[in-house]
Amino acid sequence: MTRIAGFTAVVPAGGAGTRLWPLSRAGRPKYLLDVTDSGRTLLQQTWDRLQPLAGGGVVVVAGAHQEAAVRDQLPSLAEADLVVEPAGRDSMPAIGLAAAILERRDPEAVIGSFGADHSITEPVAFASAVREAVQVAQDGWLVTIGITATRPATGFGYIQLGDPLDPEVAPATYRVRRFVEKPDAATADAYLREGGFRWNAGMFVVRAATLLDLLDAERPDLAHALREIAASWDGPDRSATLARLWPQVQPIAIAHAVAEPAAAAGRVVCVVADLGWDDVGDWAALGALLPPAVPGRPQVLGDDDRVVAIDSSGLVVPASGRQVVVVGLVDVVVVDTPDALLVMPADRAQQVKDVVAALRSAGRADLL
Amino acid sequence: MTRIAGFTAVVPAGGAGTRLWPLSRAGRPKYLLDVTDSGRTLLQQTWDRLQPLAGGGVVVVAGAHQEAAVRDQLPSLAEADLVVEPAGRDSMPAIGLAAAILERRDPEAVIGSFGADHSITEPVAFASAVREAVQVAQDGWLVTIGITATRPATGFGYIQLGDPLDPEVAPATYRVRRFVEKPDAATADAYLREGGFRWNAGMFVVRAATLLDLLDAERPDLAHALREIAASWDGPDRSATLARLWPQVQPIAIAHAVAEPAAAAGRVVCVVADLGWDDVGDWAALGALLPPAVPGRPQVLGDDDRVVAIDSSGLVVPASGRQVVVVGLVDVVVVDTPDALLVMPADRAQQVKDVVAALRSAGRADLL
Repeated sequence: MTRIAGFTAVVPAGGAGTRLWPLSRAGRPKYLLDVTDSGRTLLQQTWDRLQPLAGGGVVVVAGAHQEAAVRDQLPSLAEADLVVEPAGRDSMPAIGLAAAILERRDPEAVIGSFGADHSITEPVAFASAVREAVQVAQDGWLVTIGITATRPATGFGYIQLGDPLDPEVAPATYRVRRFVEKPDAATADAYLREGGFRWNAGMFVVRAATLLDLLDAERPDLAHALREIAASWDGPDRSATLARLWPQVQPIAIAHAVAEPAAAAGRVVCVVADLGWDDVGDWAALGALLPPAVPGRPQVLGDDDRVVAIDSSGLVVPASGRQVVVVGLVDVVVVDTPDALLVMPADRAQQVKDVVAALRSAGRADLL
Repeated sequence: MTRIAGFTAVVPAGGAGTRLWPLSRAGRPKYLLDVTDSGRTLLQQTWDRLQPLAGGGVVVVAGAHQEAAVRDQLPSLAEADLVVEPAGRDSMPAIGLAAAILERRDPEAVIGSFGADHSITEPVAFASAVREAVQVAQDGWLVTIGITATRPATGFGYIQLGDPLDPEVAPATYRVRRFVEKPDAATADAYLREGGFRWNAGMFVVRAATLLDLLDAERPDLAHALREIAASWDGPDRSATLARLWPQVQPIAIAHAVAEPAAAAGRVVCVVADLGWDDVGDWAALGALLPPAVPGRPQVLGDDDRVVAIDSSGLVVPASGRQVVVVGLVDVVVVDTPDALLVMPADRAQQVKDVVAALRSAGRADLL
C-alpha cells in the first residue's frame, strides 16, 4: 500500500468503558483491549490499518487518564502526534482540536477521523475507500464512509445516499441526502429493502480547514477556541492556553455540530465500501468477531484451559485467572474479571448499560 | 426436651465435597459449610439438634483431614467423643468403630447414627421419632427412620413398610419389608401412589452390641477388627492398633453391610416421621431450603449487596467477595468462589458431579 500524500489520520480514542463491562472500564475503555484475541488491541489494530496509509502520520487524541496506556500500546507514536485532552468533551472538540493543530502545520492537510475501537476485516477495501475519500475531500467536501449494510441493524445510524458525485473520477462516491439516527427494527428493514442506505461508521475525511470552517459557521465560539488553542499548541504556552480555554468547551458530537448541518446544506458526500466493519458495540457483537466455537462449547476470549463447558454455547471471558465452569446454558455470556462477574444471555447484551447504571446508583463507581 | 437415657448420637462426618462444588471441596465438605445461611454449619445444626437429646453425648466420626475443622466448629465436643479415622472407609467402618467404642464403655448403649450434612426443619418431630426409635431399639431391633415422601424424588432411596410393630407401645413404628435403591421417576411415582414407602434418610438407631452382632453375622472379619480397635481405643495402644488394623478395613456402606441383610431377615423396623428432611444433595435442593427470593431476583447465599440482578431468578452464591451481576437468566445457579466459578441452570444441578469428573480428568485436582 502506498501512502496517501497530504493525508493525516486522526484517531479519537474515547469511550466510557460501559459496553464491554466488566472487561472494559471507565479507566480502561474498549480500545485498550485485545477483544478480538488477535494479539493486538483495537487501538493497535486501528494504528496498524492507518499507519501505512497516512503520509502525514497518525494523530491520536486521548484523555489525560489514558495517555500512559496509549503511549505504552503505540511505542512508534511520535510525540507531536499525541493530543492529550485535559478532559473529554465528546467527538467534535477532540477531532476539531486535532484538525486545528494540523491546519496550522499544513493548511492543505486532509484529515480522516476513525474511531479507535472499531473492527475492520477488509483492510484493502478500507485503504481504497480512504484513498478515494481523500481525493474527493481535497475539493472541499466533507466525506464520510458508508458501510454496506449486511443486516437490518438497529444499533447503528444510517446514511441515505443521493446521486453519484462523479462516477468517472470517484466511482464509489455519492452525495449524502441525510444522516439518520439508529432506527427501530421495522425502519431498518425498510432501509435494507429500499436500498440507498449505508451504515454510518462515524468516519469523516475532510480538509482540516474545511472542517473548521464548517464548524465556524455553526459554532463560531468553539471553532475560535480550538484554533486559539492550536495556535499555541506547538509552543511554550500550550498548557496555559488549554487551562484557560478547555474548561469552557462544551461537549458536542461531530455529527450534530457539523455533519448533519453540512448534509442539509449539500456539502457532504459518502464513499461506499464493504469493510467487514463493526463497532464492537456489545458482547453479542464481539462474539461475531471471534473464531467460531467448537460445537457444544462457547467461544472463549482468553485462555481456553480456564473454561470447562458441558452442553453450552455463547462466549466466556476468563479474565480473572479463575476456572470458569458452564453447564447447560445456550448463548450465554460469562465475563469473569478480578473484581466483577457478569452472566447473561447474549440477547441481553444491550442491557449492560443498565447494569452500569445500577452499579452507579448503588454507589459502586469503583467497579465502573 | 428431656435427654434420652442410654442414648448416644453418632455423627459420621464424611463426604467428598462434590455435590455443592465449588463451594464444597474435598478438603471442606458440605457439613463444614453454613449452606442454609443460618449462622450455623450443617455439622453445627446437627449438633444443635442431637446434643439436647443424647443422654450419652454426641460422638463425631471424622477423617483426619477434617479433625481440626470439626474441633473448631464444635468447641463443646468432648475429647472422648471425637473418633478420628486415619482414612475414610465409607459408613460401616465409621459407624461400626463408634459402636464398638461405645459398646465397651456401656454394653447396653443405644446409638443413633445421623449424617452430619442433612437439613431438618422439624426438630420436635425429630426428637419424638428418635425417642420412639431408642425405645424400640432396646428390644434388639435395627431401627431406621422413614421420612414422609412429599414428592416422587429420584435422588433418595426408599423404605417399604410392612405391618405395624406394636401400635400401643410404638405407634409410629412399622416392620421394614425392604430397602430400595434410588428409583427412576416412574417408579417413584408408583411408590407415592401405592403408599407404604418412605424416604430413606440413612438414619439408624440400634443397640451398639446389636449392630456389631449383625455385622459379625455378615462380615465377621470387619466386626472383629472394629472390636479389637475399640478394645485399645481408650488406652495407650490406640495408634498402634489403628495403624495395624485400619489399612485392612475394606470400605463398605452400612446399608449393604448390615441394613439390607437384616431387613431380609426381618430384623429391621422403621419409625415414620415428617421431619422437613433434606440431604442437601445438590444446588437445586439447597435453593429450596433458603428463604424465598424477592420476585425478579435470585436467592442469595451470602452477602446480598454483592449481587446485582436484572430480570433473573435462581440462586447466586457470591463467595469470592467480587460483585456478581446476573441479567435475564431464569432459574440459574451462579456459584462464585475465589478460584472457581460455576454457572448452570438449576435443573442441571445433578451434573456437578460430571464437572468434578471433568476437572479431575483435566488434572485440576487442585480445584476439587
